[in-house]
Amino acid sequence: MARIAVVGGTGHLGKAIARRLAKAGHTVAIGSRSAENAAATATELGGLDFGANADVAKDKDFVIVTVPWSAQTATLTQIRDHVGNAVVVDTTVPLVPPKVMRVQLPEAGSAAMAARELLGPDVRLVSGFHNVAAHVLDTDALVDCDVLVFGDEVEARNGVVSLVADMGMRGLSGGALANSAAAEALTSVLIYMNKTYAADGAGIRFTGLTKAPPIS
Amino acid sequence: MARIAVVGGTGHLGKAIARRLAKAGHTVAIGSRSAENAAATATELGGLDFGANADVAKDKDFVIVTVPWSAQTATLTQIRDHVGNAVVVDTTVPLVPPKVMRVQLPEAGSAAMAARELLGPDVRLVSGFHNVAAHVLDTDALVDCDVLVFGDEVEARNGVVSLVADMGMRGLSGGALANSAAAEALTSVLIYMNKTYAADGAGIRFTGLTKAPPIS
Repeated sequence: MARIAVVGGTGHLGKAIARRLAKAGHTVAIGSRSAENAAATATELGGLDFGANADVAKDKDFVIVTVPWSAQTATLTQIRDHVGNAVVVDTTVPLVPPKVMRVQLPEAGSAAMAARELLGPDVRLVSGFHNVAAHVLDTDALVDCDVLVFGDEVEARNGVVSLVADMGMRGLSGGALANSAAAEALTSVLIYMNKTYAADGAGIRFTGLTKAPPIS
Repeated sequence: MARIAVVGGTGHLGKAIARRLAKAGHTVAIGSRSAENAAATATELGGLDFGANADVAKDKDFVIVTVPWSAQTATLTQIRDHVGNAVVVDTTVPLVPPKVMRVQLPEAGSAAMAARELLGPDVRLVSGFHNVAAHVLDTDALVDCDVLVFGDEVEARNGVVSLVADMGMRGLSGGALANSAAAEALTSVLIYMNKTYAADGAGIRFTGLTKAPPIS
């Protein structure tokens, strides 16, 4: 079982991820800008560890960052000197309100590449969870959506694919960290489809993969 | 039935699209840089019309452009003064060999937005067909992949979604032309998955859409 911090863990996505990982038996800590905010969520989830982002980021196997695009820089700056050898999992989608149904990738190419610039080359960085609807993830229901994981380090990437499986979903490697742009852009398309095709959490499934893990 | 030109129609994707559209009863013309090249494909497909790209682009309802990224500028330049009120369907994926498994979106944001810059604001422009494996499309088999269509003009976009249905596939609107970046980027991910998960033409399906057309 892994030691996992969910930074920005009081938001909807963070809470949903923390809940599923804790249920799978991992040791999960909730981080927030202030330890007080984190405490409420940690209690709600059955007494998890909690603390300020910088504190929970220490001595972990995985540090999962679940904050809005507007908070990515500040949050990564808080944790970067504390993550050590942990795999940082950035889930940021570069949505720019009010036009969240329109793809607006940042200058770095993607939020993941922006994270790479902020964290420097030595932090083990993976991105993922861009296309999962938080309100569906935050239930025990089957999530009818593959979870794409991107990263330049195979072992780190595979570690996150494995966490996704623990959460009851199919994780798939999508290749290099730069490929995160595809999933991040797709999020705006999915928000558009929720409206256009009356979906309550549209998702994607990959077809034709003969050697992929089975759908849960 | 529509009058349709497939520009760059001697390539694998163009031929496959032309074959399915002709089978559905549309009047299809094959275009190529030279009329001679187009003639061979037109004959192979059962005696379609053919001609140089600029010629076949005239007096059509749809002009579908199926060329590699390296040929997009030259091809669009050949046809832009001839398409008139036709809906131009750009299928270009900005793959940059040799790293075709790596997302490398162009400065304009996407091949579709590059096409917009080249064609100017008055040409009716839609993009689509980025994620369909040409060798699967070029059979009568079911293509287990949704076809995303992007564009800023609803009527033009819906017209292409309807053509996709005629071809035996599920077409879905993906929203604004700028959203084409999502599908274009996804193509590199699919090429990566073909290799990583032993797929022969990986595809995507959208889930949770309660008001989408049925899968064929």
